[in-house]
Amino acid sequence: MGENLEVLKKRLADIGQLHRAAAVLGWDMRTYMPPGGAPARSEQLAYLSKLTHEMFISEEMGILLEKSENECAGIDPDSNEAKILRNVRRSYDHAVKIPTALAEEFSRHTTLSEDVWTRARAENKYSDFAPYLDKTLDLLNQMIQHLGYEEEPYDTLLDMYERGAKTMDIEAVFQQLEKPLVDMVRAIAGATPKGDNSPITGDYPSYKQNKLTLKVVASLGYDLNRGRQDPTVHPFCCGFSRDDVRITTRFSPDRLEPALFGSMHESGHAMYDQNIPAEFDNTPIGGAASLGVHESQSRFWENIVGRSLPFCEFVLPLLQETFPVPFESCDAARFHRSINRVHPSFIRVEADEVTYNLHILLRFQMERDILSGKITIKDLPEAWNAKMESMLGITPPNDTHGVLQDIHWAGGMIGYFPTYTLGNLLSAQLWRSMRKDIANPEEHIRKGDFAPLLDWLRENVHRHGSRYFSRELIPTVTGEPLNPKHFLEYLQSKYSQIYDI
Amino acid sequence: MGENLEVLKKRLADIGQLHRAAAVLGWDMRTYMPPGGAPARSEQLAYLSKLTHEMFISEEMGILLEKSENECAGIDPDSNEAKILRNVRRSYDHAVKIPTALAEEFSRHTTLSEDVWTRARAENKYSDFAPYLDKTLDLLNQMIQHLGYEEEPYDTLLDMYERGAKTMDIEAVFQQLEKPLVDMVRAIAGATPKGDNSPITGDYPSYKQNKLTLKVVASLGYDLNRGRQDPTVHPFCCGFSRDDVRITTRFSPDRLEPALFGSMHESGHAMYDQNIPAEFDNTPIGGAASLGVHESQSRFWENIVGRSLPFCEFVLPLLQETFPVPFESCDAARFHRSINRVHPSFIRVEADEVTYNLHILLRFQMERDILSGKITIKDLPEAWNAKMESMLGITPPNDTHGVLQDIHWAGGMIGYFPTYTLGNLLSAQLWRSMRKDIANPEEHIRKGDFAPLLDWLRENVHRHGSRYFSRELIPTVTGEPLNPKHFLEYLQSKYSQIYDI
Repeated sequence: MGENLEVLKKRLADIGQLHRAAAVLGWDMRTYMPPGGAPARSEQLAYLSKLTHEMFISEEMGILLEKSENECAGIDPDSNEAKILRNVRRSYDHAVKIPTALAEEFSRHTTLSEDVWTRARAENKYSDFAPYLDKTLDLLNQMIQHLGYEEEPYDTLLDMYERGAKTMDIEAVFQQLEKPLVDMVRAIAGATPKGDNSPITGDYPSYKQNKLTLKVVASLGYDLNRGRQDPTVHPFCCGFSRDDVRITTRFSPDRLEPALFGSMHESGHAMYDQNIPAEFDNTPIGGAASLGVHESQSRFWENIVGRSLPFCEFVLPLLQETFPVPFESCDAARFHRSINRVHPSFIRVEADEVTYNLHILLRFQMERDILSGKITIKDLPEAWNAKMESMLGITPPNDTHGVLQDIHWAGGMIGYFPTYTLGNLLSAQLWRSMRKDIANPEEHIRKGDFAPLLDWLRENVHRHGSRYFSRELIPTVTGEPLNPKHFLEYLQSKYSQIYDI
Repeated sequence: MGENLEVLKKRLADIGQLHRAAAVLGWDMRTYMPPGGAPARSEQLAYLSKLTHEMFISEEMGILLEKSENECAGIDPDSNEAKILRNVRRSYDHAVKIPTALAEEFSRHTTLSEDVWTRARAENKYSDFAPYLDKTLDLLNQMIQHLGYEEEPYDTLLDMYERGAKTMDIEAVFQQLEKPLVDMVRAIAGATPKGDNSPITGDYPSYKQNKLTLKVVASLGYDLNRGRQDPTVHPFCCGFSRDDVRITTRFSPDRLEPALFGSMHESGHAMYDQNIPAEFDNTPIGGAASLGVHESQSRFWENIVGRSLPFCEFVLPLLQETFPVPFESCDAARFHRSINRVHPSFIRVEADEVTYNLHILLRFQMERDILSGKITIKDLPEAWNAKMESMLGITPPNDTHGVLQDIHWAGGMIGYFPTYTLGNLLSAQLWRSMRKDIANPEEHIRKGDFAPLLDWLRENVHRHGSRYFSRELIPTVTGEPLNPKHFLEYLQSKYSQIYDI
């Protein structure tokens, strides 16, 4: 390959080292940093962010990129080099179009906004937060002006999280979901569960939950020699190389679900990162296809596998060994029903598989409406509550349980929510394709033999790193574009076995 | 102040942020990083190190420094600005004199050398390690050529750890120590302890040791809102700002001493860093006076306070509460004797207060002799063992218990060991001065009221950051240069109460 490309790759790897250092600082901040460390940490992170930005948008980088493109003109567009150049060009054009002053103001404002939101949520004071959300939208609109858009402004925001996705396409997919989901929620609400499905509460000490969840995620294929698990308030996964990808989880003293399914969820993310080819590590193709594809991996292991009856059969002996009370008097079907209770609720992160995507559809609509000005920031809580009522039949008792519940908007992340539903839909679509290649995967799950499933994901998804956008990857792997039908069929089939519908 | 100085300070603060980021990566590497993360971590650290070095020795920095010196010519030499410029000039001249290629080779070689040493120590194969030590000396000699020296080459190495210290001065101090210490060790070996002094072994679960040691270090004044404690193999202290200074400790299942005195030792280091004035934070005067002064703080809390009878009286109820067996049947004097057993031993880090400095004197002599070529690397183990015999009357059974025991030489740190003894000596000298200002400090210790002691150290030592070199600080605080007499008197007085000598 050309020598400019080699230099470009070296420069990008250097910047990558700084991003990785920042990621370690972020992990530490959210796990173990003492409270007093916060102000200095934010300065360390701010400088790292400023420095990497300056290094990336430097004139030298622009020239190197152009020379590399010239010397690579005509190479196989499917080669790693071509994919690298495509990804770098995208990020570079994005980064240089945003004036540094605007990027800095956005970063400073959203840090402040998150802080205000934390208190506003705790005190149920939407009016305190509203001016900050207003300003966020103003800054995002300025960014959209700089970045431009093809069809509608929201495309530009969406593209930050789901490369190449279009609002129209997402809307078309979401429209196919709304009515069937609303209908299914209503049907289940009026149906009887096929047996006791009450929560299985108990006395679950954290250290036992930790041991148990580590056993479970290790059995799935999460490599603990290249990862670890720590407790945190808001679980996340983050990696500093493909050989150091960490998960966090949350231990509830009287309920196992947050830790068990939280750990499985994060390990799904982590296994994606751990299985990106080693030669892609710290290069522009060493990431994921998109946030939606990333979420498909976490949801696959958490829901498709984790909340299935075969998995309950596999995990029950482990639960009984660790917590004889209450699990010795419990069978797999009882556990399965208890972890798959469907009921409309206010909080997205606690929602079940059926209602979850309605929470996302609501947010997608709100985001588009506040961005276009169709709904004012002042009227947003009312619009939120009305939509909750029409979709889920419930009205939040206050804004803390409504419009104030998520951190995303406070942090300036508008356009992010749809990726959660994209992930859910894709997890079912991947599962359908996997079943064509693996005979009786349920039997593998029941035996705790997860290797064939992980191998399939590695071969079909992980191996490609960020060579492809999700809209390119999905048809290659599943034979068709993202299709919500598979997710609806999965739900229909699963919940008709649990509820008398 | 001048505008160049302001820019210089800003540039140095930026570099400081990167050093702090590297420190977080180092902490993580030695506490929680999974094994697989090591190769990528070393690349992250190598790049951060290269980048900070390049930023610091840049031509722009040299010009800024010179302009700042010019615009500050004639200012009060005791002002913070003058001290900042003095410190930066020292580091800058040092950094630019070492060719980048040599610095890189030294870093690469010592990383390799540490790795070889780890195996050589485990397998007792000095001959495997010897060529690496040889090369280290060769590289250090090259550095000395570049850096120059006034009196003897060893000065240059010493100066890296103890700014401004001279070999001749250290030697003069150490000479006053050797005979009295050797005599004292012999006297104690032939004496009877005044009561049972056998180790107090027991069953000490880690989580209980952790709780206990946290209580103890918090009572000393270590601010856990701006710090934390984690378990590790080789305890250390490290900070990422004055408001995030962390300690680590080591839990032995059947002995309390490693954790209790390890935590107190590291908290002594940490309290120094936590109490440097906030306005010095992340500036060239925001460090410590020297490694020796740093060690005086750790040794003060570990030994002068921690291994004193009044402290045993204070801590015994805590021990009894946490570990009724074996401490309910133990009194303070019994505990005091057990933690102050003096006996010649092979391993420095396990040595008692009396024999400890003989281990250092031996290393100081070996370092000078291998640097000057008086002893060849091949003959070093023999010289080591002969010196152990003459000083402590024991001969190591193998090199693992002898010349191979410490990591310092493997890591290229020659000239570091003397700072341990300087710290021990200074701790006693500070204690003597403190007693003139604080009436009956033993009574404060007995009551667990450590604030007056910490306040005194804050006022006399911490407050100055790295404004002064140790040889400037010590006379100001104690009225005389470093004087080994105070340490010898401290030992004599203490051990004549424990042993019948």
